[in-house]
Amino acid sequence: MDTTTRTRRIALIPGDGIGVEVAASARAVLASLDARHGLGIRIDEFDWSCQRYLDTGALMPPDGLETLRAYDAVLLGAVGWADVPDHVSLWGLLIPIRRAFSQYVNLRPVRTFAGVTSPLADGENRPIDLVIVRENNEGEYSQVGGRFGQGGPGETAIQEAVFTRHGISRIADYALELASSRGRRVTSATKSNGLVHSMPFWDEVVRERAELRPEVELVEEHVDALAAKLVLRPESFDVIVASNLFGDILSDLAAAVTGSIGIAPSANLDPTGENPSMFEPVHGSAPDIAGKGLANPVGMLWSVVLMLEHLSAGEAAAQLMDAIEVSLRDPATRTADVGGTASTEQVTAAVLDLL
Amino acid sequence: MDTTTRTRRIALIPGDGIGVEVAASARAVLASLDARHGLGIRIDEFDWSCQRYLDTGALMPPDGLETLRAYDAVLLGAVGWADVPDHVSLWGLLIPIRRAFSQYVNLRPVRTFAGVTSPLADGENRPIDLVIVRENNEGEYSQVGGRFGQGGPGETAIQEAVFTRHGISRIADYALELASSRGRRVTSATKSNGLVHSMPFWDEVVRERAELRPEVELVEEHVDALAAKLVLRPESFDVIVASNLFGDILSDLAAAVTGSIGIAPSANLDPTGENPSMFEPVHGSAPDIAGKGLANPVGMLWSVVLMLEHLSAGEAAAQLMDAIEVSLRDPATRTADVGGTASTEQVTAAVLDLL
Ligand SMILES: CC(C)[C@H](C(=O)O)[C@@H](O)C(=O)O
Ligand SMILES: CC(C)[C@H](C(=O)O)[C@@H](O)C(=O)O
Repeated sequence: MDTTTRTRRIALIPGDGIGVEVAASARAVLASLDARHGLGIRIDEFDWSCQRYLDTGALMPPDGLETLRAYDAVLLGAVGWADVPDHVSLWGLLIPIRRAFSQYVNLRPVRTFAGVTSPLADGENRPIDLVIVRENNEGEYSQVGGRFGQGGPGETAIQEAVFTRHGISRIADYALELASSRGRRVTSATKSNGLVHSMPFWDEVVRERAELRPEVELVEEHVDALAAKLVLRPESFDVIVASNLFGDILSDLAAAVTGSIGIAPSANLDPTGENPSMFEPVHGSAPDIAGKGLANPVGMLWSVVLMLEHLSAGEAAAQLMDAIEVSLRDPATRTADVGGTASTEQVTAAVLDLL
Repeated sequence: MDTTTRTRRIALIPGDGIGVEVAASARAVLASLDARHGLGIRIDEFDWSCQRYLDTGALMPPDGLETLRAYDAVLLGAVGWADVPDHVSLWGLLIPIRRAFSQYVNLRPVRTFAGVTSPLADGENRPIDLVIVRENNEGEYSQVGGRFGQGGPGETAIQEAVFTRHGISRIADYALELASSRGRRVTSATKSNGLVHSMPFWDEVVRERAELRPEVELVEEHVDALAAKLVLRPESFDVIVASNLFGDILSDLAAAVTGSIGIAPSANLDPTGENPSMFEPVHGSAPDIAGKGLANPVGMLWSVVLMLEHLSAGEAAAQLMDAIEVSLRDPATRTADVGGTASTEQVTAAVLDLL
């Protein structure tokens, strides 16, 4: 039992589109786990979203980050909607949260499940179980840069990637520590041959940190070759450590290789515990299926598993993960994107039954 | 017949490792096509390579680029070897050639072949036929940037991506024109949500150019989602236009999805014809199999096809492409990386027989 007198305060931001639908699923599941395990869960919901931006001019209130600071974790559905450019919606909510709270680890586990068909031939016989450890605070995603000579023939845009020793060290350390409790191998994504300032530095610092963990093998792969290998030999990977942009690309790719983006979870972690961490499915707001009850709640529910683990509620987390696994086995209790027939609500009901 | 009194002067740079082996294959095939079609082919070979760097301190002589300027095309095997850091070997030869000769298009056709098994389930029934049009002169691969506070705790590396209206316009135009003679759809790889200076500019210019070609449909995809779709629905793509880095990643990935990096070709084109263009297989020097006769020459030979097309020798090009296709059908005339039993020389002999 995870019963404690402790309270676990969760800020739930459903966001836009199917974010709202999968957030409802998470609420129901958390209520059930709370009743069973006495987790002391208290959920406050925030309507921060593109709709709010269209109504008020801001995705969240000016003191939004301060508000979140009081919580033990943030659970986010998805943010993004037509009429609001992506860079507005993301840099107005998601990315500021990741950065203000030093959530420098974006953890993206990827694995195969019985019942979810991989697009690869012989997928059933190739169990994939890897974790992408994505740097989440610096690197290529930077607001440094700008436009020169607007409208003229020489118009130029500069985008600066910024990598710090501090930032690379801590993400490398996290990946190495994780690997030492798993398969003891870290693959580091690089592109030192093309990106001659940032990536040789990345390699240098990752190597230095790896020397402190001789029990873990470090393998370096150029990101182009690594992308190819994720298709050709995905089962050969254990922990992959990557910069913000490379981690973004590789994690979507790896999720696709296992059969569905709809089941992929992510944790934005501040491993120091000083700030709240944030948990969100990898999928977006999916305007094309929003409001139809078709959304796969598993990406969100698996994110809840990661959140419960982070909040030291390991028993509840394990129980939920088991329920997810069982529900995925049966077409009647999984959604159409993974070859099933169930609605979001039906999957949720099945998971609740299984708890 | 492509018979003309014209001479076609080719600079052959075998380079390192299996580059040397596949270059020998190309020489033999070109000699045979020349004899048959009277193409006026004159090949001069250059030993520019990592070995030359280790011996003399430079991959090519100081007047190397001037020397190449006199040729109609450059054919390159592969450059790169242990003991020479990649960024030295590439920025000392490959990348200067791409830039000095305004080879701003890196063309990477990707398709399935009978006999080459795709790693995807049901691959035989999913014919893939797409072309990646990669920007080859600017963008993320830039020497702008550097290191600050070396060795100190605040050490920082900056890597600047530089995108110009001129550069984006011309690559978009090339992709749009190519698409209008194919499936009339261009997918543009973006990441405007994360990279807020470079990619919104890329999108803006690509859209402007696409408006001038109303017969071609423009689809924009974030590079993470695009990578996933290349695994889930590769058959849905026609022409993909991408920046230097994104094109690099997506083209390796797409080649993997069809079954082998060993068959993937590339053309570095100056479409104005003012400068020589360069043709090279996508694979590298492959130290692990070098010298063993295991290299798949098809990536190189398909690159020769692209070169012959570029040099207005369409009939010879088509004949070679047919021979490649037929050779790939039989395990006895294809290499181990594509499930065959043949050596580099045996594949070459088979292609020569088929010509
Ligand atoms: C070797 C490297 C610099 C090169 C590139 O990224 O351009 C290679 O990967 C390629 O695709 O031609
Ligand atoms: C929406 C976008 C900015 C975001 C990212 O690239 O970080 C998303 O793709 C993700 O992976 O969380």
